[in-house]
Amino acid sequence: MPKLSFKATNMPASPIRKLVPFAEAAKSQGKNVIHLNIGQPDIETPESAKNAIKNTQIEVLEYSHSAGFESYRSGLSNYYAKNDVKVSKDEIIVTTGGSEALLFGFSVALNPGDEVIIPEPFYANYNGFANTTGINIVPVTSKIEDGFALPAIEEFEKKITDKTKAILICNPANPTGYLYTQEELEKLSELIKEKDLFLFADEVYREFCYDGAKPFSVMNLQGVDENVILIDSVSKRYSMCGARIGALISRNKEFMDSAMKFAQARLSPPTYAQIAAEGALDTPQSYFDDVTNEYVARRDIMVDGLNKIKGVNCPKPKGAFYAVAEFPVEDTEHFCQWLLEDFEYEGNTVMMAPLSGFYATKGLGKKEVRIAYVLEKSQLENALTCIEKALKKYPNTTY
Amino acid sequence: MPKLSFKATNMPASPIRKLVPFAEAAKSQGKNVIHLNIGQPDIETPESAKNAIKNTQIEVLEYSHSAGFESYRSGLSNYYAKNDVKVSKDEIIVTTGGSEALLFGFSVALNPGDEVIIPEPFYANYNGFANTTGINIVPVTSKIEDGFALPAIEEFEKKITDKTKAILICNPANPTGYLYTQEELEKLSELIKEKDLFLFADEVYREFCYDGAKPFSVMNLQGVDENVILIDSVSKRYSMCGARIGALISRNKEFMDSAMKFAQARLSPPTYAQIAAEGALDTPQSYFDDVTNEYVARRDIMVDGLNKIKGVNCPKPKGAFYAVAEFPVEDTEHFCQWLLEDFEYEGNTVMMAPLSGFYATKGLGKKEVRIAYVLEKSQLENALTCIEKALKKYPNTTY
Ligand SMILES: Cc1ncc(COP(=O)(O)O)c(C=O)c1O
Ligand SMILES: Cc1ncc(COP(=O)(O)O)c(C=O)c1O
Repeated sequence: MPKLSFKATNMPASPIRKLVPFAEAAKSQGKNVIHLNIGQPDIETPESAKNAIKNTQIEVLEYSHSAGFESYRSGLSNYYAKNDVKVSKDEIIVTTGGSEALLFGFSVALNPGDEVIIPEPFYANYNGFANTTGINIVPVTSKIEDGFALPAIEEFEKKITDKTKAILICNPANPTGYLYTQEELEKLSELIKEKDLFLFADEVYREFCYDGAKPFSVMNLQGVDENVILIDSVSKRYSMCGARIGALISRNKEFMDSAMKFAQARLSPPTYAQIAAEGALDTPQSYFDDVTNEYVARRDIMVDGLNKIKGVNCPKPKGAFYAVAEFPVEDTEHFCQWLLEDFEYEGNTVMMAPLSGFYATKGLGKKEVRIAYVLEKSQLENALTCIEKALKKYPNTTY
Repeated sequence: MPKLSFKATNMPASPIRKLVPFAEAAKSQGKNVIHLNIGQPDIETPESAKNAIKNTQIEVLEYSHSAGFESYRSGLSNYYAKNDVKVSKDEIIVTTGGSEALLFGFSVALNPGDEVIIPEPFYANYNGFANTTGINIVPVTSKIEDGFALPAIEEFEKKITDKTKAILICNPANPTGYLYTQEELEKLSELIKEKDLFLFADEVYREFCYDGAKPFSVMNLQGVDENVILIDSVSKRYSMCGARIGALISRNKEFMDSAMKFAQARLSPPTYAQIAAEGALDTPQSYFDDVTNEYVARRDIMVDGLNKIKGVNCPKPKGAFYAVAEFPVEDTEHFCQWLLEDFEYEGNTVMMAPLSGFYATKGLGKKEVRIAYVLEKSQLENALTCIEKALKKYPNTTY
């Protein structure tokens, strides 16, 4: 049999998948597994998106323009304008999810072997996209003690080598839920300018900001138009993950011209999904208000509940729908597996994502988990009860 | 401004796009441009696909399984069984178009710098996927004199180095329309086995075989189960290019396990499009019969018509919906541009794809064009008239 490539061998499996076989076994034993491990919201997709699909009159399902339908790009441009971000339709390439935008972005900006600095813990699939494009991720560690705020700029500076081509941030962040302040972003922007690096910003959770906090887009940083690359997606915004519609956005024309060639090679983003995404642009503000209220309520139940459990520490995030919690255990991989294999309470158990897979630095995050609060409140209450009971029963609890 | 990557610099633009600005200029001058240059069929998408979308009751548009919906993969497995190809649902990963299947396939099988041998002329976007994944394409030239049949096996052997990891064929072929015989494929299979290479087969035009010819799938080659990788797509089959649904198929479990990690990193193929593609599986045989009859009629008009024009040579293809024609000119790039810029007949002109961009060997294909006969017969007749008149008027015609 012919040998596979080293990219095949090195391709990391997603850390949230490792426990899937254990979850399946638990279910086949009749346990109800409460899934706090995945970022698939249960929120309904807006009517306007679904109606757009129902009403479509397509006779021949053709390729769209490789950059996406012009009408959709114009609509997106209006969406950003409403969010105080000025971007023209020609500065947008519609991609197959934010995922493809990241792949295009890495391919255009970095040579194989080049480095992108990313605050850790970070969205684990960045590892997969880095492996696919042959680039290296250099982590800068953010700390639970300060709620996963942006690490000091000196920490970034320490990591800069002649291979460094970019910094990537996720704002609000998966997995930490941390929302970067304008001040933090401006500091980062100074560094970007000084070292002439690309700044990738994954803002797919923009709509999920709480307690009156407003997201500050990297597109509004001054003097770094040539450096800033925005990654966006409708997946979370309108709870339409399955659409596979994202966007790669930049005012750097040369960058976008190159990205277009990658877009042209793969012909076009999905047509039906673009129709749905264009429909979604008509989503009323009340939808977002309702969703925000729902997530705030869920977050408060989850995070406040966790902090009441002995030995658990969970900073309260201001964005996205994730939280990182530190548990009184030595190894959350073991604890999370034990929850599925050896524990149940009133027929329930909980599946969480051990955080070590979200760090690039080996050995970090061993006491931490990521929790996605994308379930109904009653389920979150049940999950909290489970976690509390489980920590009392788990043989390796350290309090 | 930070420097772009060498992949960005080297990313080839599609050869069929070079002339787009001239076509746009021609249109703005009021000319009717008859598009023989693109493989976007005008055939209606099957009702069952469109109805599946109209009737979908999705509330939350979720990610699907990263390998695609199980129900769709089972349906695909039945589709292949009907086409005498035995493949189980677990040997299928649903991809975002055949394009993504090619990207996954190259990434899993070849290291950057490794070589894939491809008979030229070939589908030009293979160049883009090779550049994206850092691999090199080594061409073996097929010749218009023998209708673009598979080059002799010795020609492949001559090109094999210690970097060669795979051979890729497209069957039936874009741009030549050539349909490989079982004998040709078996010879190739011997070589594959002997040298332990991967054999990629892009069979996205499988349904388009004419004059009673039956396509022979590489999946039915004996003793090369670990080597054979099938690339498929619904784009052409059901005239649903905009769906963006393809498939990566292999009985090589290790290969597929690795490919799954690439699939998981990008989360899932598009959900709506999978629903449509699953609906398309119910397309009656009569649809394919009608389409085949239509394409045979178009091909006959086009190819017979071309061969009647003085100095033109166009082998009659047995598959796909393309033909390659040799023209009595020195440089079809110039001729095709001239057609758009300086020619019209009764308000019409013709856009064709110069073939040099489909060859990897510099200097080849300069007298050739690719013609896609995806338009109504009356339009094809008009195109033929244009071409005949144009060759009489073109200053560089060589007869
Ligand atoms: C931070 C972040 N970026 C990007 C993505 C990719 O999402 P998609 O490809 O569905 O747009 C996700 C999905 O979970 C995410 O959490
Ligand atoms: C030979 C061949 N392979 C693959 C593709 C990619 O098609 P898609 O990504 O739409 O499946 C095409 C499209 O024209 C093609 O002609």
